Amino acid sequence: MNILIENTNLLSMEDEIIHKKNIYIKDENISYLGDRNDFPFDLKIDGSNFLTMPGFINSHTHVAMSLFRNYGPETDLMTWLNDYIRPLEDKLCPSDVYYGSKLGILEMIKTGTTCFADMYFFCDETAKACRQMNIRAQISRGLACPDNELNKIKENIEFAKLYKNDPLIDVGLGPHAIYTADLDYLRKISDYAQEYQLPIHIHLSETQKENDDCYAKYKMSPTEVFEKAGIFKNKTIAAHGIYLSDNDLDIIKGNDVSIVHNPSSNLKLSSGFLNLSRLLDRGINVCLGTDSASSNNKLSMLREIETTMLVSKLFSSRPITSFEVLKMATINGAKALGIDRKVGLIKENYKADLIMIDLDNENHIPHNDILSSLCFSTYENDLKNVIINGKLLYQDGKYIGIDDKEILNNSQLVFDKLKAR
Amino acid sequence: MNILIENTNLLSMEDEIIHKKNIYIKDENISYLGDRNDFPFDLKIDGSNFLTMPGFINSHTHVAMSLFRNYGPETDLMTWLNDYIRPLEDKLCPSDVYYGSKLGILEMIKTGTTCFADMYFFCDETAKACRQMNIRAQISRGLACPDNELNKIKENIEFAKLYKNDPLIDVGLGPHAIYTADLDYLRKISDYAQEYQLPIHIHLSETQKENDDCYAKYKMSPTEVFEKAGIFKNKTIAAHGIYLSDNDLDIIKGNDVSIVHNPSSNLKLSSGFLNLSRLLDRGINVCLGTDSASSNNKLSMLREIETTMLVSKLFSSRPITSFEVLKMATINGAKALGIDRKVGLIKENYKADLIMIDLDNENHIPHNDILSSLCFSTYENDLKNVIINGKLLYQDGKYIGIDDKEILNNSQLVFDKLKAR
Repeated sequence: MNILIENTNLLSMEDEIIHKKNIYIKDENISYLGDRNDFPFDLKIDGSNFLTMPGFINSHTHVAMSLFRNYGPETDLMTWLNDYIRPLEDKLCPSDVYYGSKLGILEMIKTGTTCFADMYFFCDETAKACRQMNIRAQISRGLACPDNELNKIKENIEFAKLYKNDPLIDVGLGPHAIYTADLDYLRKISDYAQEYQLPIHIHLSETQKENDDCYAKYKMSPTEVFEKAGIFKNKTIAAHGIYLSDNDLDIIKGNDVSIVHNPSSNLKLSSGFLNLSRLLDRGINVCLGTDSASSNNKLSMLREIETTMLVSKLFSSRPITSFEVLKMATINGAKALGIDRKVGLIKENYKADLIMIDLDNENHIPHNDILSSLCFSTYENDLKNVIINGKLLYQDGKYIGIDDKEILNNSQLVFDKLKAR
Repeated sequence: MNILIENTNLLSMEDEIIHKKNIYIKDENISYLGDRNDFPFDLKIDGSNFLTMPGFINSHTHVAMSLFRNYGPETDLMTWLNDYIRPLEDKLCPSDVYYGSKLGILEMIKTGTTCFADMYFFCDETAKACRQMNIRAQISRGLACPDNELNKIKENIEFAKLYKNDPLIDVGLGPHAIYTADLDYLRKISDYAQEYQLPIHIHLSETQKENDDCYAKYKMSPTEVFEKAGIFKNKTIAAHGIYLSDNDLDIIKGNDVSIVHNPSSNLKLSSGFLNLSRLLDRGINVCLGTDSASSNNKLSMLREIETTMLVSKLFSSRPITSFEVLKMATINGAKALGIDRKVGLIKENYKADLIMIDLDNENHIPHNDILSSLCFSTYENDLKNVIINGKLLYQDGKYIGIDDKEILNNSQLVFDKLKAR
C-alpha cells in the first residue's frame, strides 16, 4: 500500500526545525520527502493540520503485564513484585501472555508507540501478537530463576533463530537483574550473546536497596558486576539506572550501553528519580520507557515525555529541553535497539514508522513554542494517525484491521480465569 | 431539560463504594438516585458502561492565561512572571480576557472540570464567558499593583454586587500574594471582605524565596502576615502552600483556610512539591488545582490527580490513597469554595454537575482496583459525558451548544494582535 501525506508539518527529528513537506510512503519505506506530489497512491492524507514525527520507541516494557494493571496495593518494588506479581506470573500460561501482549499493544498503538523493547517470557506469544498487529519490537526472554536454568537461555536462543531476519521482530537476551541472576549465570548469558551476536536487555540500579545488596554480596556495584561478567561486551539496554556512581557512568559510556529512563514507574514504585542531565552531559545514550502497565499504570510515551519534563525540574542538574526528551523518545531509542539506521527519524529510505498529531485544538492554540506544546500540552487523543512499517493502523480514534473488541473481551476473560486458577 | 441516566456505576464520593444506580436530573438538580426509572425525560443516557462521578473542581487557576500557554522559555516563577508574562499582561484588553477565558473553559469542559476558582482581572469578561458556556466558577480579581490601588478593591466589590445570587458565578476578593500586596493593603482588603461577606483567594508560600523575602521584610512567615492583616477572618482559598511551618499549619487549621495543591505548576516552575500527608493528617482541607495553562501547560484535573499520586510517592510522609486524591479534586474543592452543600458529591437535591467516564477500554481492562484505575490509567478522552448545572455540554468528543471553532479561531487572532500591539 502506498500512502501520500501532503503538506504536513514535519518534525523529522534530524533537527528541531519543523518543515512543510510531502511524504511519500511506498510499501514499508519512506521513499520521498519534499515538494513533489506526483506519486501513485492508494491513500492520500491531508497533513496540513498535523505535526508529523517519528513514532515513539518505548525502550523498556513488559507488555503482557497489562493484564496486571491496577492489581495489588500501593507499595514498593520488592513487595509488589514478590507478594503480588510473582504469584500471578507463576500461574500464567502461553495464551495469557498472548492476550496480555495484544492488550498492551492496543494501548501502545493508540498512544503513538511504533516500536518497543520487551522483556518477559512465552516470548513467541508476544512476537506472534506483534506480527498480527504489525508493531515493531525487540523481544528478550527474562532470564531469572532460583536455579539459574540453562534451559531458559537455550529457549531464548531458539526463539532468536526463529525470528532471524524478521521484518518487525528482533530478539535479545534478557538477564533480568543483579538480584535475580548471579555472576556465573551472567557469564553464561554473555557467552551465548557473543556466540549468537544478540543484544542484551537488563534492569540496572533501579533502587538503592538493589545497590546495597549487590555491594554486600560482591563488594561491587551492579554495573561493575555486569561488566565483570562480560555482559557489556554485547550491545545493552539497561533500564532505570537511577543509582549510578561516576565509575558506573564511565563503564556505561565506555561500552555500547543505553540507559532507559522510566519516570512513571520509578515514581509509582517509590524507587527515586534519575538526574537526567548528569547522564546526557556525559554523552550517554538515554532513551525513554513506560516499564509495564502494572507499575505505571499506562503505556503512553506522551505521558513519560511530560513527566520527564516536569519532574526533572526538581531532579536534574540543569533544565532538560523539549528536543532532548523528544530525542529520548525516538532516535535514542532506535540507537539503543540497534535500529537507528532504519527507524527513529523521518528520512528517505527509513521504515515508515510515523505519527501525526493534531495541534489545532483547545490545548495547543495559540501556537507558541511548538516543541514545548508537544511535550507539555498534548493529550493522547491528539494523535490522529499512526503508521507502522508503511501500514496505517490507527486513524481518528479507530483501529484499522485490528479487532480491538475481541482483544478486550478475551483479556478480561483470561484475567478472570487466571485469578481463579 | 430532564435527563435520565440509567444503570450507571455511581461513585458519589460520599464513600469509596461504587453502586449501580439510576440518576434522574430535573432541570439543574439531581432529583433522584436509586432503582426507579419511571421519570419523564428529554434525554436518556445508558450509563451501564460508565463510571459516573461528581465533576472536578479546579480550585486554583487563571483561566484567561491559556492565551500564554507555551510562551516564554523554561524558567523559574519570578523570571517567568516578570520577564515574560507581565509585559504581555500589561497589554491585555477586556476582549482578550474574554477569549482567553473561553479557550481555557473549552479545555476544562472536555477534561471534566465543572467548576473552578479563578483569580485574574477584567473579571466580568471571565464571568460572561462562564455564563455563556454554562460552567460554574468562583472569580476573584487579582489585587496587586505597585501602588496598591483602592480602585481595584472597589472594582472587585462592584463586580461582586453584579453577580450576587447568580446561579453559576460566585465572587471573591483576590489579594495576589505577600510579595505583591503589603500589610496595609491586606488590612483594607480584609475589611472589605468582612463588610461584604466575600471569600478570599490568595497565593501562599509557593517558593522558598517568597518565604525568605517575607521574613526579611516582616520577621514573619507569609501565613503569619496574612493572619495579622485579618485576611483569615474570611473564608480563604490559599494556593500552593509548599513551604509552611508547623505554626503556619496551626493557623490554617484554626481558620477557614483551604490549601490548593498545584502539582504540575509547582514542578514546571521548579517551585518544589507539597508534602501532602503532612497537611491531610492535620485535618486541613486540601484541594487540587491546575494553576494557569501557561505554567502547567494543561488544564486537566485528571493529569493533576495522576501527578499527585505519582510524585507524592517521593514527597509525602506516607502513601496517599486514590480516594483521598479524588476527594481533593471534588468535595474538598467544593468545601474550599463554600459550595459543598450544592456540588462536589452526587446526591439528591445537589446541583447536577457530573462526569461519565468509560472504563471499558484498553487502558482500564482487566478491571482490578477501579479507583486506582481512575487515578493512574484514565486518558482524558475516556471522559464521554460532561453535565454542568443539569445541562449536557460535552458528549463523545463533541461540545454541545458551544461553537468551539469560533473560539479557537478568535483566540489565535487575539493572541497574534496582542503580541503585535
